[in-house]
Amino acid sequence: MRAVQVIGYGERIRVTEVDEPKVVDPHDVVVRIAGAGICRTDVHILDGQLAEAFKLTLPYTLGHENAGWVHEVGPAVTTVSPGDPVIVHPAVTCGLCTACRSGNDMHCGTWRFPGVDGWHGGYAELLRTSVRSLVKLAPKTDPTRLAPHADAGLTAIHAVKRLAPFTYPGSTVVVIGFGGLGHLAVQLLRVLTTARILVVEADPARLEWARGYPVDAVHSSGDDGGLSAVLDETNGLGADAVLDLVGEGRAPEQAMRMLRKGGVYSIVGYGGEVTLNHLDMINRELVVIGNQIGSHRDLVDLMELDRSGRVVLHTRCFPLDQAADVLAEVAAGRVPGRAVLVP
Amino acid sequence: MRAVQVIGYGERIRVTEVDEPKVVDPHDVVVRIAGAGICRTDVHILDGQLAEAFKLTLPYTLGHENAGWVHEVGPAVTTVSPGDPVIVHPAVTCGLCTACRSGNDMHCGTWRFPGVDGWHGGYAELLRTSVRSLVKLAPKTDPTRLAPHADAGLTAIHAVKRLAPFTYPGSTVVVIGFGGLGHLAVQLLRVLTTARILVVEADPARLEWARGYPVDAVHSSGDDGGLSAVLDETNGLGADAVLDLVGEGRAPEQAMRMLRKGGVYSIVGYGGEVTLNHLDMINRELVVIGNQIGSHRDLVDLMELDRSGRVVLHTRCFPLDQAADVLAEVAAGRVPGRAVLVP
Amino acid sequence: MRAVQVIGYGERIRVTEVDEPKVVDPHDVVVRIAGAGICRTDVHILDGQLAEAFKLTLPYTLGHENAGWVHEVGPAVTTVSPGDPVIVHPAVTCGLCTACRSGNDMHCGTWRFPGVDGWHGGYAELLRTSVRSLVKLAPKTDPTRLAPHADAGLTAIHAVKRLAPFTYPGSTVVVIGFGGLGHLAVQLLRVLTTARILVVEADPARLEWARGYPVDAVHSSGDDGGLSAVLDETNGLGADAVLDLVGEGRAPEQAMRMLRKGGVYSIVGYGGEVTLNHLDMINRELVVIGNQIGSHRDLVDLMELDRSGRVVLHTRCFPLDQAADVLAEVAAGRVPGRAVLVP
Amino acid sequence: MRAVQVIGYGERIRVTEVDEPKVVDPHDVVVRIAGAGICRTDVHILDGQLAEAFKLTLPYTLGHENAGWVHEVGPAVTTVSPGDPVIVHPAVTCGLCTACRSGNDMHCGTWRFPGVDGWHGGYAELLRTSVRSLVKLAPKTDPTRLAPHADAGLTAIHAVKRLAPFTYPGSTVVVIGFGGLGHLAVQLLRVLTTARILVVEADPARLEWARGYPVDAVHSSGDDGGLSAVLDETNGLGADAVLDLVGEGRAPEQAMRMLRKGGVYSIVGYGGEVTLNHLDMINRELVVIGNQIGSHRDLVDLMELDRSGRVVLHTRCFPLDQAADVLAEVAAGRVPGRAVLVP
Repeated sequence: MRAVQVIGYGERIRVTEVDEPKVVDPHDVVVRIAGAGICRTDVHILDGQLAEAFKLTLPYTLGHENAGWVHEVGPAVTTVSPGDPVIVHPAVTCGLCTACRSGNDMHCGTWRFPGVDGWHGGYAELLRTSVRSLVKLAPKTDPTRLAPHADAGLTAIHAVKRLAPFTYPGSTVVVIGFGGLGHLAVQLLRVLTTARILVVEADPARLEWARGYPVDAVHSSGDDGGLSAVLDETNGLGADAVLDLVGEGRAPEQAMRMLRKGGVYSIVGYGGEVTLNHLDMINRELVVIGNQIGSHRDLVDLMELDRSGRVVLHTRCFPLDQAADVLAEVAAGRVPGRAVLVP
Repeated sequence: MRAVQVIGYGERIRVTEVDEPKVVDPHDVVVRIAGAGICRTDVHILDGQLAEAFKLTLPYTLGHENAGWVHEVGPAVTTVSPGDPVIVHPAVTCGLCTACRSGNDMHCGTWRFPGVDGWHGGYAELLRTSVRSLVKLAPKTDPTRLAPHADAGLTAIHAVKRLAPFTYPGSTVVVIGFGGLGHLAVQLLRVLTTARILVVEADPARLEWARGYPVDAVHSSGDDGGLSAVLDETNGLGADAVLDLVGEGRAPEQAMRMLRKGGVYSIVGYGGEVTLNHLDMINRELVVIGNQIGSHRDLVDLMELDRSGRVVLHTRCFPLDQAADVLAEVAAGRVPGRAVLVP
Repeated sequence: MRAVQVIGYGERIRVTEVDEPKVVDPHDVVVRIAGAGICRTDVHILDGQLAEAFKLTLPYTLGHENAGWVHEVGPAVTTVSPGDPVIVHPAVTCGLCTACRSGNDMHCGTWRFPGVDGWHGGYAELLRTSVRSLVKLAPKTDPTRLAPHADAGLTAIHAVKRLAPFTYPGSTVVVIGFGGLGHLAVQLLRVLTTARILVVEADPARLEWARGYPVDAVHSSGDDGGLSAVLDETNGLGADAVLDLVGEGRAPEQAMRMLRKGGVYSIVGYGGEVTLNHLDMINRELVVIGNQIGSHRDLVDLMELDRSGRVVLHTRCFPLDQAADVLAEVAAGRVPGRAVLVP
Repeated sequence: MRAVQVIGYGERIRVTEVDEPKVVDPHDVVVRIAGAGICRTDVHILDGQLAEAFKLTLPYTLGHENAGWVHEVGPAVTTVSPGDPVIVHPAVTCGLCTACRSGNDMHCGTWRFPGVDGWHGGYAELLRTSVRSLVKLAPKTDPTRLAPHADAGLTAIHAVKRLAPFTYPGSTVVVIGFGGLGHLAVQLLRVLTTARILVVEADPARLEWARGYPVDAVHSSGDDGGLSAVLDETNGLGADAVLDLVGEGRAPEQAMRMLRKGGVYSIVGYGGEVTLNHLDMINRELVVIGNQIGSHRDLVDLMELDRSGRVVLHTRCFPLDQAADVLAEVAAGRVPGRAVLVP
């Protein structure tokens, strides 16, 4: 079958012919890919930034945002059948540890991500995964456009759920960065909280795009990362929560400054860092939350919100063969919403 | 009446004769002091570290850990009468804002602390406060030895309650620093959680003192701030929670290293800072919580735990006239437990 | 001033001239009534059903859903001024007990309801209440149409908030009864949960009215109280929650039958009863929740949801002088939404 | 192997020779029984009360409170090995439904209980179960005496965890009935809450037994089911929670009367029923909770509390061959604590 693989760090990814994945363990499922979303993490893997972290053996097939149809099932699989449309939770987990049994799959001690640090990923015609990782979609659903929910949407819903207890009617949530995650995060904030939503974004085109969503205000990050705009909108008190989808540059430091007493800084974007002063943490009684991707349950909930139309994913599809070019466009921030490769 | 006042920053505090406080507002209460606890914040005020923060007019009477008997009540006070034993919540709050009405007194927009940034404090024979700040004790209770609960105990119970949701039977909480707050924190952890409790402390005498409490292990902070001991105790996984009562030096950085995936760093001690790396916050999905003092409800709960003997405060009493010397001993860390001045 | 009073149980209420209420306690506020909502409880008081419960001295002024403008304030009142538009929480509470301090005003041991079991109510030009009971509205807000939020809306938001933890995307909430409370409850369910909303109602006109709201299905209660319709909509499993706004007749028993395993029966309507079988309670692991009116905080939240347009109250206004006729219409169930008396 | 089987309803159970259970599914585990606890449900199955509910094919081996050592494992089992000491969660569940994945195993749509409504139970030398149902014990643990934790302890911890949020220091929990569940429930209440614990029990010998546990008061249920004693202990206000381990006779009705405003009635015992009056449910804002057995996680937590000595199970062991006589003793209420059959 065809697959798009990393041949060497810093080189263009290449379409190659590889062996089809097979069912090995009794709970394995092979999925025929309808769409595979492109994530910035793919860019970071390709340029070698994560070589140390994941120690991959090249060539390696990228792709951890996958959706498609069940193709083949292992002998212990009873809940899905060939042909069922599915979205694939990115993690393959054990199902028996305390984390898995409590619904915190992402804290499973043995988890692996096909396409990141485990088996080959979904930039291909077929993907091996486990039945535990599947969410079955309604019959006849086209899975293609849903693929980015498997990571971008999943991360967004997970972070928004954990932030929701800090909100109430009239409270203020600032979203820093409006792109693939951001356009989902604001919709999820609208559905899962009653807070006012302020978007801070540097790029004029993305600012304009944000205005089309149900947010209460959109501000250019300007000279101070949006700090003065947020203080203006909150009578100088600051925001109840900041959801930082950028996580680098000055965003973290300005995010902390935007918070009111008792506020929460929710981290999703990464690359940067921030220094906490203990006296300030105590006096303002702040909370800082790091967010991984979400659980299987988060993905089930997200699929229902998508199905019922309460969350709409902005997806643009490209043929799998154009993967190298599309990845470059994503790296340059030139694809609004999320890009999906279609085999 | 006699009071102990700051005359100038960096000078010895002095016993002076001052006017008695009077009821001004309808909800005011004047309390006859039985005991006034000494807190490290008093040391910091006296040496001028907080001069910028609080802008006090000197001379100023210290003392924000107060307990005694109701002496005089304002015309709108109906719930306490002269002679009632009481402990005094350190904050005077409005009672009508959302924070006050939700039980988060300490987020009241107008709060003031007698003895810190408001009226004169309780290193004196009498203290002016508000009926809202009082917790009535059982009849015939001697309030003297309870005074330190008004800040040390209050902060400890507040922090432990917020950390409790991260614990479960067999989970591990590390307490960094075993002194006035620490000896209360470990008792509260024992009562309010089912976690294993590990104490890390540098001072040999305090280490020895800690061994007398119901903790699971006591470790010298040694060369690495206790990090290797914590990893040894947790199969290399790290602790579910670290309660940092030191908050300066290397404690914050080592505390973050002690955490397992999903862990929480709970800040009580201050003076230092720590740098969070966003990729680490996400990968380990960590939470950082800053803790102020507790609410009025926290103080009510603490008084019940003290009354029923589930928490025992280690207090040493000194005559008010010796305040200057005792404060120097506290500053030098030579008073185990908490010191109380008795007028 | 004019007031509408109960002269004798079972008699028509009568417009009379009475003395104006005065500020007595330092925190009292006299409110000039803009609108006073009519509640079925008023009907029950008038017909004598609650004579035993409340032991009122007649003549007595009804009216516990009040909104208007501050008219006069007591000497200790600093947060509102004459002319401010306000809505009046129905309970006058102490502010110092544990319940009041925790935001559970409605569990205050000394609470009284003007218009029900305390001072005279708001079917009048002026009402005496306490500053603690007020929620200040945005400047220039017309309070008239908002009055029913003070009880109908308050009860609805309180019940929905307590039911919300039992819901998730794709879960099912059944609302039994669509009237004054019902039309608010479905809007609040839409805003505060992600559940599917099914309405069950007997009256054809109300059924038709319900279809204009964002609900997922509307069913006639038919022969079986809506049971079979709910089972059809839930693959035979039953609903995750039933919000019973009727609470009499066969509604309670059918509500219990509608529940799936782990489901919750939330009681708002009253008059009836239901027998729980312990084996069934255990096998299906059911929860039953009784709901009083909401807290002050609930009212603050509701006012913000109304202000931002996320909840819209269907109100019809009538002159105060027509109170007797309007009360008869309400008793007969002929006023859709809520009726408001305007002095 | 030997097994104790129900031959006919109302007849004595009989020791017989049966085939050994085998591994069938890849996740199956066969456990060598160390001890099998006797539960009142066994009595009810034997006398035919539950014949309609479970439709068992006789002869049938009872026993759903099982502990022992792993004897044989299926091909997909990797987390336990022959010889490992284990306790067996009574339910065999699917592991893939939302309930299983959220840690609510007991709401799994396909669950079965060996010894109750599924495979043969543990009154035998060997038991077939699933790896998902096992909790591995510390090496060298003797599982025999732990068997009753698999149902009695599991139900108690589950109910206490759900009741805990309604308690606080100084709150009051009434436990109705002090036997196998009761002696565990009071220990768990002591560890998992800060409430005062009142025990109400009719039997003098059990009353005496209760006095040996860390409870705040023990009362004979007397003429009024303990109602007046509870009111006396709570200044006439009533209890914050009642944990009803009896669930029949007058217990349910008196339990409801014991509650204060905002209180919770927690149902564990069954056989009876209670009628709720809607006006009362609303005015007192009561909550009623039905409790099934607990989740796998509950069992993990309980084993840790047992291991650390915070909960001690009172067990009496009997040879498996005496099962018929012991069952009769249990039916007559003559075995304090829990009886365990040892093959």
